Amino acid sequence: MSGTVVAIQGERGAFSEEAAEKLFGRRLRTLPCESFAAAFARVTKGKAQWALLPIENTLAGSIHEVYDLLLENRLYISGEIKLPIVHNLIAFPETTLRNLREVYSHPVALAQCSKFFAAHPRIRKIPFYDTAGSVKMLAERRLPGAAALAGRAAAKAYRARILRAHLEDHKENYTRFVLLSKDCRPTSRADKTSIVFSTPNVPGALFRCLSAFALRDINLTKLESRPWRGRPWEYLFYLDFIGHVEEERTRRALTQLGEMTDFLRILGCYRSA
Amino acid sequence: MSGTVVAIQGERGAFSEEAAEKLFGRRLRTLPCESFAAAFARVTKGKAQWALLPIENTLAGSIHEVYDLLLENRLYISGEIKLPIVHNLIAFPETTLRNLREVYSHPVALAQCSKFFAAHPRIRKIPFYDTAGSVKMLAERRLPGAAALAGRAAAKAYRARILRAHLEDHKENYTRFVLLSKDCRPTSRADKTSIVFSTPNVPGALFRCLSAFALRDINLTKLESRPWRGRPWEYLFYLDFIGHVEEERTRRALTQLGEMTDFLRILGCYRSA
Repeated sequence: MSGTVVAIQGERGAFSEEAAEKLFGRRLRTLPCESFAAAFARVTKGKAQWALLPIENTLAGSIHEVYDLLLENRLYISGEIKLPIVHNLIAFPETTLRNLREVYSHPVALAQCSKFFAAHPRIRKIPFYDTAGSVKMLAERRLPGAAALAGRAAAKAYRARILRAHLEDHKENYTRFVLLSKDCRPTSRADKTSIVFSTPNVPGALFRCLSAFALRDINLTKLESRPWRGRPWEYLFYLDFIGHVEEERTRRALTQLGEMTDFLRILGCYRSA
Repeated sequence: MSGTVVAIQGERGAFSEEAAEKLFGRRLRTLPCESFAAAFARVTKGKAQWALLPIENTLAGSIHEVYDLLLENRLYISGEIKLPIVHNLIAFPETTLRNLREVYSHPVALAQCSKFFAAHPRIRKIPFYDTAGSVKMLAERRLPGAAALAGRAAAKAYRARILRAHLEDHKENYTRFVLLSKDCRPTSRADKTSIVFSTPNVPGALFRCLSAFALRDINLTKLESRPWRGRPWEYLFYLDFIGHVEEERTRRALTQLGEMTDFLRILGCYRSA
């Protein structure tokens, strides 16, 4: 995988970069993109072989923009990884725990460290566009008394120090990332499949769709509904289940599902994290 | 209903205020709150009889913070209303279509009017914290060449002019609001029920839960999953279905559902919009 290019959303040092290193080891080059849509475009246009994007967090929930982009684009899910989200207090030498007066970060990160701020009422929370981006800004502006909340990779990327680790309120904070590529070539080790479908608007429609899986003892790991644009109050369902797409049991379930849906697409088949 | 106080999120003139007027007529006083959580608190503490909060938009999807607050608080859904979202270009006399150079609004509103901005590349989009709030800011600062994107109620609240109506790309843009109160006293006209439940993590669990409704021909109108905080990769399901909570068919369905869930709560029973 030498020379592997992975498109990520966010600045260098983002949690996505941490996830990419965990998945590919050090044999990769990350390509920071300004948006999720831009990361999809880099892969579609061949500027990157892969995109690694967050799809769900165990506290904040699903990242809907990524679900919507999976439908609008033709990339396939080729892998997944789950990363524990650890928020660190990161600063440069002009800031210490003693002179600390303000902390910059993404509003979600600031909210996930509310106990720290409640215990230190004199420290101001300052919302910023990105976690790693707040470390980058401090690297440029070197504000005395200012720190950032971000992942370990951000401290490394900008050669900053971790003043204190694990500021998050809930330790059970994980983000699941999906690895996207242009090709759908599931390996023999793949054991999980992701699909999207819509049901006719009649009583029992979703129940009949789920029967395709339940009657075959296929375990569902996630069901997400999203509005169908242009069809108010109708929904698309994104479903993850355990099974290889070429397994006979899975093929039969998908055949049955196809009879009961208006629309069905396979988003990918990959090794579960 | 004279003297009715309705807590809403956002500035005066917000879409929530438009929805409140549509629901209660003019016999109400709205109480603008800085957050969804603050609106819940106003009702819990008796400062308002009702809160009217957005729960889903047909383009952007569910508003998860409101779902999570329904679980954390003990308010009941007592009604709902669906409002067409119309984005208007709103300005004061120092701005006309000729000298227009910048438009302030919430990022979602700016994104929902992308065709207008593509057709007028010299007009800058400036993200602001709130749609109605951007009209309020212009009322105070009176910037020549600047306009805001917001609902009709915002133009009225700040005595501004609508330069152009219907800037939104998709006309099929609706928001559903739920009316919350301390009491759960469904009227005889109520025909819709909202619940939240969790399933044991075994194959077929959700299928068995939905059978309680499908086997009785009860129509589901919405199924939303949210992460269960502190239990990574487990989910809570929020379900809306057609039926009065005291109807025999509904009572039997809920009894069956209770046998199959780890947790079940009725969030409200109300007249569907």
